[in-house]
Amino acid sequence: MQDSITLYSYFRSSASHRVRIALHYKNIPFTYKAVHLLKDGGQQHQADFKKLNPQAQVPYLIHNGKGLGQSLAIIQYLDAIFPNKKLFTEDPYQRAKILQFCEVINSGIQPLQNLMVLKKLESQFNASIEQKNSWVTDWNHHYLASLEKYLNETAQDFCFGKTVTAADCFLAAHVQSTKRYNISLNSYPTIQRICENINRLDAFIKAAPENQPDFEK
Amino acid sequence: MQDSITLYSYFRSSASHRVRIALHYKNIPFTYKAVHLLKDGGQQHQADFKKLNPQAQVPYLIHNGKGLGQSLAIIQYLDAIFPNKKLFTEDPYQRAKILQFCEVINSGIQPLQNLMVLKKLESQFNASIEQKNSWVTDWNHHYLASLEKYLNETAQDFCFGKTVTAADCFLAAHVQSTKRYNISLNSYPTIQRICENINRLDAFIKAAPENQPDFEK
Repeated sequence: MQDSITLYSYFRSSASHRVRIALHYKNIPFTYKAVHLLKDGGQQHQADFKKLNPQAQVPYLIHNGKGLGQSLAIIQYLDAIFPNKKLFTEDPYQRAKILQFCEVINSGIQPLQNLMVLKKLESQFNASIEQKNSWVTDWNHHYLASLEKYLNETAQDFCFGKTVTAADCFLAAHVQSTKRYNISLNSYPTIQRICENINRLDAFIKAAPENQPDFEK
Repeated sequence: MQDSITLYSYFRSSASHRVRIALHYKNIPFTYKAVHLLKDGGQQHQADFKKLNPQAQVPYLIHNGKGLGQSLAIIQYLDAIFPNKKLFTEDPYQRAKILQFCEVINSGIQPLQNLMVLKKLESQFNASIEQKNSWVTDWNHHYLASLEKYLNETAQDFCFGKTVTAADCFLAAHVQSTKRYNISLNSYPTIQRICENINRLDAFIKAAPENQPDFEK
């Protein structure tokens, strides 16, 4: 049976971006379904989509009829099912270090800058645009400094040595998101250098927000 | 060589709690080192600890001299190195569903209620205790409702069927944290039922905050 893969994504969603990179890196063909997180009060809240994913979030992947949410779970799943060009190494300690790095983004920075949280700051604390930007900027510098320290121990061409790993998927997508907030990367030379390397790769170009069918300026 | 394991933990840290459950569940002997997150301006910021873990967070595990942070990375690592009583199954899809569940807690609720974030709400928005409680309570209900829906599809005695998995480690630790905020679980009968089951198990009792050497009322 030929694999059938559908990805529910929003071009600007950083977590969707990670999964797009993984799919393109592994050369896995997939159908792209756009879910606009702002239009119509957020299409992720529509009944059809919530029937698929009660969490009402993208990315959401369907592989041969089996659904899965959460970018990290999706990427580990893809890595198990399509083991060409592994994104997590087999060595348990190295694998865990890659996961540790991904989690600094996945459970560290990203949850604090997602749309729902910024909306909540607005509704509960009447946060202005400037205050929201300052919230996002402060958290980014807090966590980017940790990422830079980790990378100084492990990076060569990419986050972990000379081969692309899941860490590069997470880093590329995150750094893309910092551009919206004009967050300076001047203090993070290793992050900058790695991003230059990965953003030259075909998979990373294909996965970029501006190359998605639902891209808007 | 006999394995040497040290866990840096704080009795009240929910992420540390998950790792303690995993260690006790697998009957892995370990040395407990307490890091008080409030005393002395936060012992996690002291130079000695930050040399170990630049992220200045617990849990932090050292296994035969090799250090690792992030609860999910630690638990997947322990599961690979000590494969007795697996917390993640081998089947890739089931494994990914367990991870998806853990991530709703790990990258969903928990980052929004951690100490650093509550402090930031205070410093940036002058949030009162009541406002911080309401922030935590609102996020909990948002995510607990998702967890309950997921569990209605997968739970039997435990989160995934009749065997303890990583999902139970994450759920037990999270539900423990809801007690501090008096969050009602009345709308989540499946979560309540599973917690009754898991909290009877020896490993979960040993890992509970009140049974740690650094416990304080």
